[in-house]
Amino acid sequence: MLKFEIKDRDASGRICKMSTAHGNIITPNLMPVINPNKLLISPKEMRSLFGTEIVITNAYIIFKDRELHHQALSKGVHNLIDFDGPIMTDSGTFQSYMYGEIDLDPLQIVEFQRDIGSDIGTILDIFGKPDQTRNQAEKAVIETIERAKKSVKLKKDMNLACPVQGSIYPDLRTKCAQSLGKIDSDFFPIGGVVPLMENQKYEDLVSCIIASKKGLPPNRPVHLFGAGHPLIFPLAVALGCDLFDSSAYAKYAEDERMIFSWGTKKLENLSEIPCCCPVCSKFTAKELKSLDKNEQKLQLAKHNLYVSFAELKKIRTAISEGTLWELVEQKARANPYLLESLNLLRKIEHKDWLEKFEPTSKNRAMFYTGSQTLHRPIIYRIHQKILERFSLPNDSVIVFREGKKPYATFYADELKKIWEINNEIPVIVYSHLGPVPLELDEMYPFAQCIFPEITDNESEKISREIFDQYTKNKNVIFWHGSETLKELKKTSHKTIKNIDLKRIEAIIKMQFGIGASNALYNENLKIVKSKKTGKIRNIFSNEEHILSMRANDGMFTLKKEGAVLLHKFLCKPKLRVMIDDDAVSFVSEGKSVFAKFVLDCDPKLRPFDECLIVDKNDNLLAVGRTLLNHMEMKTFEYGVAVKTREYFV
Amino acid sequence: MLKFEIKDRDASGRICKMSTAHGNIITPNLMPVINPNKLLISPKEMRSLFGTEIVITNAYIIFKDRELHHQALSKGVHNLIDFDGPIMTDSGTFQSYMYGEIDLDPLQIVEFQRDIGSDIGTILDIFGKPDQTRNQAEKAVIETIERAKKSVKLKKDMNLACPVQGSIYPDLRTKCAQSLGKIDSDFFPIGGVVPLMENQKYEDLVSCIIASKKGLPPNRPVHLFGAGHPLIFPLAVALGCDLFDSSAYAKYAEDERMIFSWGTKKLENLSEIPCCCPVCSKFTAKELKSLDKNEQKLQLAKHNLYVSFAELKKIRTAISEGTLWELVEQKARANPYLLESLNLLRKIEHKDWLEKFEPTSKNRAMFYTGSQTLHRPIIYRIHQKILERFSLPNDSVIVFREGKKPYATFYADELKKIWEINNEIPVIVYSHLGPVPLELDEMYPFAQCIFPEITDNESEKISREIFDQYTKNKNVIFWHGSETLKELKKTSHKTIKNIDLKRIEAIIKMQFGIGASNALYNENLKIVKSKKTGKIRNIFSNEEHILSMRANDGMFTLKKEGAVLLHKFLCKPKLRVMIDDDAVSFVSEGKSVFAKFVLDCDPKLRPFDECLIVDKNDNLLAVGRTLLNHMEMKTFEYGVAVKTREYFV
Repeated sequence: MLKFEIKDRDASGRICKMSTAHGNIITPNLMPVINPNKLLISPKEMRSLFGTEIVITNAYIIFKDRELHHQALSKGVHNLIDFDGPIMTDSGTFQSYMYGEIDLDPLQIVEFQRDIGSDIGTILDIFGKPDQTRNQAEKAVIETIERAKKSVKLKKDMNLACPVQGSIYPDLRTKCAQSLGKIDSDFFPIGGVVPLMENQKYEDLVSCIIASKKGLPPNRPVHLFGAGHPLIFPLAVALGCDLFDSSAYAKYAEDERMIFSWGTKKLENLSEIPCCCPVCSKFTAKELKSLDKNEQKLQLAKHNLYVSFAELKKIRTAISEGTLWELVEQKARANPYLLESLNLLRKIEHKDWLEKFEPTSKNRAMFYTGSQTLHRPIIYRIHQKILERFSLPNDSVIVFREGKKPYATFYADELKKIWEINNEIPVIVYSHLGPVPLELDEMYPFAQCIFPEITDNESEKISREIFDQYTKNKNVIFWHGSETLKELKKTSHKTIKNIDLKRIEAIIKMQFGIGASNALYNENLKIVKSKKTGKIRNIFSNEEHILSMRANDGMFTLKKEGAVLLHKFLCKPKLRVMIDDDAVSFVSEGKSVFAKFVLDCDPKLRPFDECLIVDKNDNLLAVGRTLLNHMEMKTFEYGVAVKTREYFV
Repeated sequence: MLKFEIKDRDASGRICKMSTAHGNIITPNLMPVINPNKLLISPKEMRSLFGTEIVITNAYIIFKDRELHHQALSKGVHNLIDFDGPIMTDSGTFQSYMYGEIDLDPLQIVEFQRDIGSDIGTILDIFGKPDQTRNQAEKAVIETIERAKKSVKLKKDMNLACPVQGSIYPDLRTKCAQSLGKIDSDFFPIGGVVPLMENQKYEDLVSCIIASKKGLPPNRPVHLFGAGHPLIFPLAVALGCDLFDSSAYAKYAEDERMIFSWGTKKLENLSEIPCCCPVCSKFTAKELKSLDKNEQKLQLAKHNLYVSFAELKKIRTAISEGTLWELVEQKARANPYLLESLNLLRKIEHKDWLEKFEPTSKNRAMFYTGSQTLHRPIIYRIHQKILERFSLPNDSVIVFREGKKPYATFYADELKKIWEINNEIPVIVYSHLGPVPLELDEMYPFAQCIFPEITDNESEKISREIFDQYTKNKNVIFWHGSETLKELKKTSHKTIKNIDLKRIEAIIKMQFGIGASNALYNENLKIVKSKKTGKIRNIFSNEEHILSMRANDGMFTLKKEGAVLLHKFLCKPKLRVMIDDDAVSFVSEGKSVFAKFVLDCDPKLRPFDECLIVDKNDNLLAVGRTLLNHMEMKTFEYGVAVKTREYFV
């Protein structure tokens, strides 16, 4: 079984370590296609030039060529193409799509891949063309699954890739994925997508990816088979694809086309090359054009790979920063069809799915890029949470317009006047993100987002709808200066509201749920503030340090004594990650919880949530922060599930 | 006087050739700032690595340093920094902004720059800070103009740069620009913008650029002084800036920051570098971090310049392709403040201005990127033209919904049925771009644009408003199949409409104006179609070849006999470019019209329009296609104004 573990994540994308008998690679990554008949650039050179970690070659071509066949069997595929890193092999499915029926035994080609030492062999699946009828697609899926079942018995030490098919029928894709997921398969390409990409049917592509991902076990690498153009890499990664393969670098070079992050151009149409890769820094457009054809092809292929690998670095950097959606949305502006495909992500069913993988907090401020931004899963989540957890208690509510952040500072004078008269009336901000209870004003993403003053009609509509839903049947009082004060009912206690306490209570509710405030909140909490910034840093209850506030996202880090209180007040499985007895001693020494030791966990936990680590009997062992969500914790065999922070001895 | 000529163009941006005593450069371009005290990368090395063509150094620093002062005077600034290409010098204005009053005589520093052989010296202008009051800004402008007037008398062979000031007051910017434009000044920086960029006040920046451009003579290079980050290059170029200068490459490197096309990152925050420039292809992030500090600074500076120069290549490529607005809009998604600044371009006054420079046709299809697209000047123009030139003749109009392009092919069956009943009722398409008379369906940009099926509310609103305005007081019949046919009034002549003739008439009206159809159109035109595509290629009137249709944009190329007819029917100055007697013999040999020989021209001519070349007495000499607009033809001293195609012997 291929070792695969999550290291970092953003959107539904992830940075993973994949381990094979020939070494480890990081994903998202790109596998250049190596033609065993003609090595344009050798895999070794690719490694030194582009940092290539894994390549893919075609077992069908090797199988059919008498000489290559013999060599591969006698000295192995790694020797054949002279590469000691991981090698994936393809089976001939694509050839059958391109050239019609091929003469190949589906099991023989699996055995062959195994025998030549492929790290990841591929079954001979049935390519599901986009123009198939549902009936045809269904038959192809059934046959693919049958072949997978037979193939898996032959794989031995080889990792086996079973492509998800199902043409453009999402339910077939999901079913196919589910069936394949039950087999002892190691690696899941999403197959049959090349014609979608060739025809710029990106909406269908997105639909296929999501449907496939919904059916696949989350703990396995997913490979978008045949995708080699960087234009679609960010979106595919954001939807959970881990690997791409590129024959494009060579095919396009053959055709004198240059790949760019945002599209493709014919060399002949360029009077200079809009690129600074080593090839384009060495040669001018004129020089490139006048090169000998073979040399030109080589240089264009190198350019294509430099650009493609740079895009993957950009994506991995965006994941680390938490800006993958920003990258996806910006990139989509390069192509109207790609942009259109983002419309699919507005569907509630897809938001529901993507939200489960979306981190709770990010390292960087959220950037508005257009009407797509308000459809991001994290916005969907915070809307749900505000509606569920912050129901307005009074008949009336005071509403401030969007202002500088944090809002309570910006509106400090107004708040003081309001609270002098009425310290019970709730105050919310009608922000670009929708209604925000004032007390959440320092929490991610309310304070950590950058929106232009005027956004766009659709974003305004979304925030207005949530605002209307939130304030339904309430007397909504928009702040308009001293006039507003006259409208307010006087409350008997004229104490000015303690915004810090309110803020603490609100963040507890937002982060841990409504019930958590009973556990952690009381009016006698002791608050320690940063001398430098004046912001809340630590919170003590009965002299016990229960919470710390993180400066970067205004969320709480759960301290041991806080965890004790939550554990006492909230019954299981709330906030729990339950671990196997075998791991108890490790965790009790402060080591992280590895996924394979997780028995169960709160299905509501999301990546980067604070959590309680407990044993089978719900004894509290430690406090930590999740890296995985519920589905992942239950399926991943490798890697960290929860980063332990504090533990009970 | 600095030689400056337009070679190609898009949006209000332009590719120009600028000639100096030390050679020619292409613009848009970037001048790396050379610190005469410490050469981090030598100008010569910059030329070989990044293709640097021009640099800028600081005359104030040289002036103040006894040793440099002496050397510069004795051997010249080109020897001092060892660069034989064009060198611009700065005067110390920025130092006065940074460090307050400086001890420098404003005229002495001009003389000094002249004496050390600077190709472009800069006056000591008064830096207009954004927080100045209007009064302060006005005083600074007056003083700057005074100094410019005195300085210009001292410049001799040196080209003199006179920065436009005026803080954030657009009218002051325009006035300052106008006053400076009247002086014998060669080169116009837009000054005082560094604090705007530092504080991401891009809306103010855009406002300053437009206001300055409006006042400046269009024939001079415009330099956005202090702008060195590629994030803003595309927008600045699209608004007409020709040059940038970068001290950022070194300053950021000093601070261990790396410049990317879309922003800036600290090296320490990167675990890998999202870039494939030669530096980032040679070193990993880890290796870069562990370099000796001086070496690290050098490598980061190189990376910063590789990336900055690549951005300029990207921009120049976009200009050649006619996709500069696409690049601007896509780029703006990298930063919400930059995106916000595009809102300014919705103002009619700015559209009116930008439209004058906007080419009539482009090499590539128009791509939709978001709600900004429908605000492009070319859309503004076509809306005006449709409203003015295609007033609906009947009470009723039939409307098709957006469909595949070209529309007449897509709706061929429907059209046939309609015209069998009524061949007089106008038919329009309610497209993403607004109402389109059916006959214009093959013309740029109606056929040559790619929009997603669903755009956005704002775009829909714009096209609806134009649609409503266009069809006001008309009986609007949306096509809904055979039901629609029943509603149609029968016309007496049951001849089916000749769409080709209608198309020709419509394109003539759109391209040359309403009156032109009297000259060129009649029902007996002979149409020759392409055998391959079936599209109109050539048009004959009375056996004379009057028009050819271009395959790429569906517009007409004017043939000699067509020109004769237009010349006869349309009185001057319509479609005319009137040239000096000195140039008549050249043009009569088919040579292009150089700007300096243009006496006057039709103010309605736009770049890439077909035009009539005439002498002072309105004798028709030749037919051509404009490269410059009216304002440019009247001011440019160098370069082509009109590309002559056919001439009368």
